[in-house]
Amino acid sequence: MARTETKKNLDRAQEIYLTAAQLFVERGMDSTSVADIADRLKMTKAGLYYYFTSKQELLYQIVTLGLDSVKDEVLDPARKIKNAEQRLEFIILNHARLAAEGNHAVIIVSHEMNALSFKQREAMLERRREYFEFVRGTLVELKTEGKLRDIDITTATFTLFGMILWLPRWFRPTGKLSVKKVCQDVCAMALKGLLRSH
Amino acid sequence: MARTETKKNLDRAQEIYLTAAQLFVERGMDSTSVADIADRLKMTKAGLYYYFTSKQELLYQIVTLGLDSVKDEVLDPARKIKNAEQRLEFIILNHARLAAEGNHAVIIVSHEMNALSFKQREAMLERRREYFEFVRGTLVELKTEGKLRDIDITTATFTLFGMILWLPRWFRPTGKLSVKKVCQDVCAMALKGLLRSH
Repeated sequence: MARTETKKNLDRAQEIYLTAAQLFVERGMDSTSVADIADRLKMTKAGLYYYFTSKQELLYQIVTLGLDSVKDEVLDPARKIKNAEQRLEFIILNHARLAAEGNHAVIIVSHEMNALSFKQREAMLERRREYFEFVRGTLVELKTEGKLRDIDITTATFTLFGMILWLPRWFRPTGKLSVKKVCQDVCAMALKGLLRSH
Repeated sequence: MARTETKKNLDRAQEIYLTAAQLFVERGMDSTSVADIADRLKMTKAGLYYYFTSKQELLYQIVTLGLDSVKDEVLDPARKIKNAEQRLEFIILNHARLAAEGNHAVIIVSHEMNALSFKQREAMLERRREYFEFVRGTLVELKTEGKLRDIDITTATFTLFGMILWLPRWFRPTGKLSVKKVCQDVCAMALKGLLRSH
C-alpha cells in the first residue's frame, strides 16, 4: 500500500485491527464480514479497504500487532539483561502484563493462524519460534547454573507460556484484581515452580 | 432422537464427533460443512444426520464429550479423596493426562462455545463452573491448612488451568516425551508453584 504512514493513520489502523479482532472473537472469523467491521466502526466498506485489501490481510495485521508488542515490550528489552534469573522474571512480568492489560482479542486471535496464507503463517510462526527459543534458552542457562528444577526444559517453557497466555481468557482489568497483583502472582507461581532456590 | 443407543452406535457417534472436532480445528467451524465431515468419514450426509440434526448440535455433542471425560476421570474420583494435597495432585495428574493423551481437537473446540445456543452455552458453562469451583475449593482448603503460598486463589486456580489446558496446543503423544513424563513435570511445576512445603 503506497500510503503515507502518518501517526493519525497508524492510530486509526490500530483501532480498526483491535475492533476486527474483537468481532472475530465474539462471532468467529468466518461469520464476521467486512460490512460487520465497518458497521461497528461507523465507517464505509470502501473506507475500510484503505487499511487492508482482504480479510486475510486483516488477520495478518492483527497477528503482527500482537507479535510487535511482545518484541518491543518483552523480547528486545529482555535481551539486554545479562543475569538469567532476572531476565526470566522480567519476561514473565512483562509478558503477563501485556496479556492481562493488552487487547484480549488480539492475543486470542493471534493463536488462530489457520486462515493465513502459507507464507504469512510461516513468517508468523518463525517470529513465535524466535521468542520461544529465547525463553527456552534462558531456562537452559538456569539449568547450567544449577538453578532449574529437574523438569524437562521444553515442557517447562510451554507450560510457562500456558500460565501467561491463559490470562486473556479469564482476567479482566476492570475486575477487583489489579493488573499488577495478577502479574506478580503469576510470576511468583511460575518462578517457584521453575527454580530450586526461589 | 428416538434411537437405540447400542454400543456400536455410541462408538460410531464418538468417532464422528472426534472427526468433526478435528476438522473444526483445522479449518474453523464456519468453513467446515456437513459435507466435509461426511467426506472425511466416507459417509453420506444423510447418514450423518442420524447422529446430529445441526452443526450447532454437533458442537454441543463435542463439548459434552470433553466435559464428560473430565467428570468421569477427574472430578468424580477426586471427590472421594479426603486429603486436599493428595486430591490436588490427583486432579493435576489426571486432567493433564486427559489433556495430553486425549483428543486435542475436542479440548480446543470445547473452549469455543460461541456457536452454541444461549441455553446450551449456559448449561456447558455451568458444568465448567462446577469443576472450577471444586478445584478452587481444594485450594481454599490448602490455604486454611496453611499450605498454600501467598497468592490470590482465583489467579492460582485459573493459572493452574492454563498450565494444563495449554498441553493440547503443543504436546503430541507421538513425540519423544511420554505422556507420563509430561504430566509428572506439569504436576511438579504446579505443586511447587502453589504449595509452600512441597
